[in-house]
Amino acid sequence: MASTWKNRLSLSLFGQSHGAAVGVTLDGVPAGERIDFDALNAFLQRRAPGRFPWATPRKESDTPKFLSGIVNGKTCGAPITAIIENTNTRPADYVNTRLVPRPGHADYTAHVKFGGNADLSGGGHFSGRLTAALCIAGGICLQILQKHGIFIGAHIASVGSVRDDLFNPVDINEALLKKLFEMNIPVLNPQTESLVIKEIENAKRENDSVGGTVECAAIGLPAGLGSPMFDGMENIIAQLVFAIPAVKGIEFGAGFSAAVMRGSESNDAFILNSDKIETKTNNHGGILGGITSGMPLIFRAAIKPTPSISQEQQSIDLLLSEPATLSIKGRHDPCIVPRAVPCFEAALAIAVCDSIN
Amino acid sequence: MASTWKNRLSLSLFGQSHGAAVGVTLDGVPAGERIDFDALNAFLQRRAPGRFPWATPRKESDTPKFLSGIVNGKTCGAPITAIIENTNTRPADYVNTRLVPRPGHADYTAHVKFGGNADLSGGGHFSGRLTAALCIAGGICLQILQKHGIFIGAHIASVGSVRDDLFNPVDINEALLKKLFEMNIPVLNPQTESLVIKEIENAKRENDSVGGTVECAAIGLPAGLGSPMFDGMENIIAQLVFAIPAVKGIEFGAGFSAAVMRGSESNDAFILNSDKIETKTNNHGGILGGITSGMPLIFRAAIKPTPSISQEQQSIDLLLSEPATLSIKGRHDPCIVPRAVPCFEAALAIAVCDSIN
Amino acid sequence: MASTWKNRLSLSLFGQSHGAAVGVTLDGVPAGERIDFDALNAFLQRRAPGRFPWATPRKESDTPKFLSGIVNGKTCGAPITAIIENTNTRPADYVNTRLVPRPGHADYTAHVKFGGNADLSGGGHFSGRLTAALCIAGGICLQILQKHGIFIGAHIASVGSVRDDLFNPVDINEALLKKLFEMNIPVLNPQTESLVIKEIENAKRENDSVGGTVECAAIGLPAGLGSPMFDGMENIIAQLVFAIPAVKGIEFGAGFSAAVMRGSESNDAFILNSDKIETKTNNHGGILGGITSGMPLIFRAAIKPTPSISQEQQSIDLLLSEPATLSIKGRHDPCIVPRAVPCFEAALAIAVCDSIN
Amino acid sequence: MASTWKNRLSLSLFGQSHGAAVGVTLDGVPAGERIDFDALNAFLQRRAPGRFPWATPRKESDTPKFLSGIVNGKTCGAPITAIIENTNTRPADYVNTRLVPRPGHADYTAHVKFGGNADLSGGGHFSGRLTAALCIAGGICLQILQKHGIFIGAHIASVGSVRDDLFNPVDINEALLKKLFEMNIPVLNPQTESLVIKEIENAKRENDSVGGTVECAAIGLPAGLGSPMFDGMENIIAQLVFAIPAVKGIEFGAGFSAAVMRGSESNDAFILNSDKIETKTNNHGGILGGITSGMPLIFRAAIKPTPSISQEQQSIDLLLSEPATLSIKGRHDPCIVPRAVPCFEAALAIAVCDSIN
Repeated sequence: MASTWKNRLSLSLFGQSHGAAVGVTLDGVPAGERIDFDALNAFLQRRAPGRFPWATPRKESDTPKFLSGIVNGKTCGAPITAIIENTNTRPADYVNTRLVPRPGHADYTAHVKFGGNADLSGGGHFSGRLTAALCIAGGICLQILQKHGIFIGAHIASVGSVRDDLFNPVDINEALLKKLFEMNIPVLNPQTESLVIKEIENAKRENDSVGGTVECAAIGLPAGLGSPMFDGMENIIAQLVFAIPAVKGIEFGAGFSAAVMRGSESNDAFILNSDKIETKTNNHGGILGGITSGMPLIFRAAIKPTPSISQEQQSIDLLLSEPATLSIKGRHDPCIVPRAVPCFEAALAIAVCDSIN
Repeated sequence: MASTWKNRLSLSLFGQSHGAAVGVTLDGVPAGERIDFDALNAFLQRRAPGRFPWATPRKESDTPKFLSGIVNGKTCGAPITAIIENTNTRPADYVNTRLVPRPGHADYTAHVKFGGNADLSGGGHFSGRLTAALCIAGGICLQILQKHGIFIGAHIASVGSVRDDLFNPVDINEALLKKLFEMNIPVLNPQTESLVIKEIENAKRENDSVGGTVECAAIGLPAGLGSPMFDGMENIIAQLVFAIPAVKGIEFGAGFSAAVMRGSESNDAFILNSDKIETKTNNHGGILGGITSGMPLIFRAAIKPTPSISQEQQSIDLLLSEPATLSIKGRHDPCIVPRAVPCFEAALAIAVCDSIN
Repeated sequence: MASTWKNRLSLSLFGQSHGAAVGVTLDGVPAGERIDFDALNAFLQRRAPGRFPWATPRKESDTPKFLSGIVNGKTCGAPITAIIENTNTRPADYVNTRLVPRPGHADYTAHVKFGGNADLSGGGHFSGRLTAALCIAGGICLQILQKHGIFIGAHIASVGSVRDDLFNPVDINEALLKKLFEMNIPVLNPQTESLVIKEIENAKRENDSVGGTVECAAIGLPAGLGSPMFDGMENIIAQLVFAIPAVKGIEFGAGFSAAVMRGSESNDAFILNSDKIETKTNNHGGILGGITSGMPLIFRAAIKPTPSISQEQQSIDLLLSEPATLSIKGRHDPCIVPRAVPCFEAALAIAVCDSIN
Repeated sequence: MASTWKNRLSLSLFGQSHGAAVGVTLDGVPAGERIDFDALNAFLQRRAPGRFPWATPRKESDTPKFLSGIVNGKTCGAPITAIIENTNTRPADYVNTRLVPRPGHADYTAHVKFGGNADLSGGGHFSGRLTAALCIAGGICLQILQKHGIFIGAHIASVGSVRDDLFNPVDINEALLKKLFEMNIPVLNPQTESLVIKEIENAKRENDSVGGTVECAAIGLPAGLGSPMFDGMENIIAQLVFAIPAVKGIEFGAGFSAAVMRGSESNDAFILNSDKIETKTNNHGGILGGITSGMPLIFRAAIKPTPSISQEQQSIDLLLSEPATLSIKGRHDPCIVPRAVPCFEAALAIAVCDSIN
């Protein structure tokens, strides 16, 4: 009752960082959807480790192996299960975490919940590696949505103190989302790229890590998707997005900025744009009452800095019940924000695909 | 598949603003819990309309009538259903909204989803009035949690540009939460109160409205509640909180501030406090990997300004498919932030009660 | 986590036999469905007590009061909540059940699960009275299905040793189902009626009760509804049907008779009937692999005899932990089979309505 | 929304008969449970093909490969995923089924639901092979239950017209269940074995198949497990049992026999057995009001004859829309009842394990 989500679609994530495999089962997707595996692999590559000079040197092929649900390149209506086998595990790196929980990680809470049997190697089931499985499911949903004229994309909105421009909330087009998809460091303002790289390299040089934010959008959505109350678009997206490790906040449309607005500023006037009902502004982020308005659906998520840093940190030896210091030796990203971008696209794609089924 | 939520507890909200009643069914609460109805009514009064000079003059008794689940003042194990009958409805006020959707409201999206049969009077099922039902369920959960030594409270963190202090994330005690509960304008810094009132009165005077943020905390939580992935504490709380109308964002612990931190700053060192494992700081907001750490659980939510304002606004006549202006005549709050405070407490109480069952 | 069911539709039943009201919330029904309240009340009357000479003399108006979800006689898309207020309760009759559990009832298991706080008056939440709420939801679903050309009906297949004919599984028409609906004792063979009445009166005369079976059918179903595995039509129907008290078995199509067949007899050959694919026989009961075949969907359910009988029975005084005898004085049906008929129609209607949403 | 089940535990089955693998994810099982893999494999062998002279000659090792959730032989709290790779597939056997649906199979309904993309090879996702995955999950739950003193076992209650004795419903002990587990043809009456074998061989000789019934029991259950209404023990067990292909009926306790009883016969008197509350008889099958009574939980399920028979059968060519005959050449059991026995034990174990979590 945790790693399985069931709504109109259902989604089950499994695997541990240093286990045999991570994987996903996605159930409820229509039959007859052709999967472009090259496109799917390209999507997964954006999340894969080892793509940046500063990134963790752990190299995994990250190519999914499909066990079910796809016949002759098309979905057959049965649940889709895909796995990524772990070929490059180095559990020895993590030996010391078994007793001394890493600050900012789930080691301690997993230990309390699951006792001495928790698999803490590399974060176990809590590892960011599980997002590879999320991205398989999301990548499939993205392809299905495209056939419905729905496009999803995201960019790095900030890394540390470096901020990119934000989406123009009433004017996001497919070409822009495609362009972002192709970028190694997907940003709207070309000048942001080098600043982002510098910010991350600075953190790395100082044996530290840095957080950031991602802005994600869906366009081409018809009005009327979603529901009031608990199964609204915001509720479902938030429930999925908080399954991505390190996420500490989410906001839709104007989000926290709406809190400092007046109603006369925040309210989005309805207008006619060649017979199509739109809003003049889009502070509502494409969702009113949990239901899509047909305007771009936009959210931003906050990602805390990677907790694994090589600086000495203060912790506790859980067996001895006494203070202990910890130096994390494993391979870690100084910043996971660039790699997190496709994870948010995946979560959004699953939520939207769920709402159109 | 919308207004019913089912996890370990289940929760079903029903009713429309100007229908016969709003109500709630809460299922899964243990038998034998004594309900203090005076305390419950006091809790509901904090949300009730008509409490502030500026608030909507609509007066409802807002006293719940229990239809089931409680015998001799105690829960009997059967589902608890309570209703609040609508006695003071004035549907005529809303006649013009039937064709011309109010900017910032769900009128338009409800019309697209439900067609001409949507009940748009006073927002129908999307009305803030439904939060009265949420608060009944939450108020019961709050009482159950108190018997487990778990206390929940909240304060207004900001209204417009006025900001209150934030909770000291490592030191929140029961006395503070009780004190906030007693305050008409619950704020941490005594000087904030008059500023908040002034900010709201200014908005009202200008026929406008104003948004804000609420900070909510739970203390006394044992470590180990919750789950990884989709049923983590953040996921469940977020799913419930976005059922409160006008919420546009949520952040846990340091939240969006964590995105500008370095890992060395963001990571919360583990320390021993007389044999109890705690963290020195609490940027994680009491949740690591979806599971409680035993530190105070803290979130903040952004509330957009009440969309109903008496200024003339631009919209569309949906029947004529042509631009139309709209002046909203109904009774509306210039700021719902003070009344929203107990709604967040209720949502958090339900999520925590679900996790301990 | 018990009396709330959530699939595409959601359903929440609440109330206790001698509480303020019993009721139901049905969520997910499309907007714009006109409800024929006379037809709904006629449907509910078939379940109502006091319709037969032998039936419990408890008279309840059993007219539902709608609290939400219906505006101007049509569904508005919001959850539909209806209650039936309990006006004729006589809790004193049940006083002795509080300590001495009635054999065949849920008194003992409710006492173990909920402790001394369980509401055992008249069976509390376990009472057959809750099926009135189920029938409100089912009656609404029946009306919606009729607009899709789907008709549901049922007959008494047996009472005690008296057996009615069974449906011709390949030829059930709307006229027959309507005729059954109009009958006080719905049976296929006209000669069964008096035998059924005699069987029940015999049981009553001997201070005893008698069980029976009901056969229920849906016609007009398109092929392709349902799902493999856990959400198949059989699974969902069974999950709902076992919520009707006293049901001890369910079988689809040939059911237990299929177990004594050879494959060559059991297999239903596919044939063309004026371009429509049908089966020559219907041992599969309209469901193959959890998915409708387009043939009549047929199930039979076994109902145990009403456990409340006025004969002295052997039980245990739970407080004294010693043997005790029990004479049940309350008002009880010697046979609930006739009143159970619409309950099965309701459960089937909800399951089918869920599958077409 | 089909092959994933979510309650306190969650269960996701995936795979197709002739795909790469079949498998299961079981989530929610406590951490620290040691899995006896030899015992698990012995359990799975009882379902494996090729064990009987008459059985399908398809030989699969059927040894599960664990991908996640188990570390050092013990559950670690993360979802448990296991797969069985398909090594001996012969899709060519099934080529003709792609257009001409096999009577009694899900070919036709899968074709309607999933269109030309349905994987019909060997039944695809509807194949009995998926029960291997169910048995992995169930076998794990069985081991967990044993540590709680709960034992589950089953026997063949009938094959065709051959009937075994039934369980003594008030006296089933662990030794008996263990003995049944060891038997190739698990029956209570030693004389039944040869009759069962003869009945199956007769059917095989006549190019036919034969159905039967299985009786399944759980002992050692505490009173008070389960819930009223939709999540009662009967509801949950039935929902899981109907996921086993070919099941057409289920009955609990006296089941359909209760329908011909009088209440005075059907009611199970409460008695004290050395301070333990029991019932004198067990027509209720260990469940009252959806909640366990502490008496043995007993159900029987009806299994239709294997629909795959080598006799010529009448069907339809779906492409040509004209009648067609069909001769099934694949490898098929004349009777799946013996192999189905552990499947019911598995379904019951999952349901009970769910209720104690």
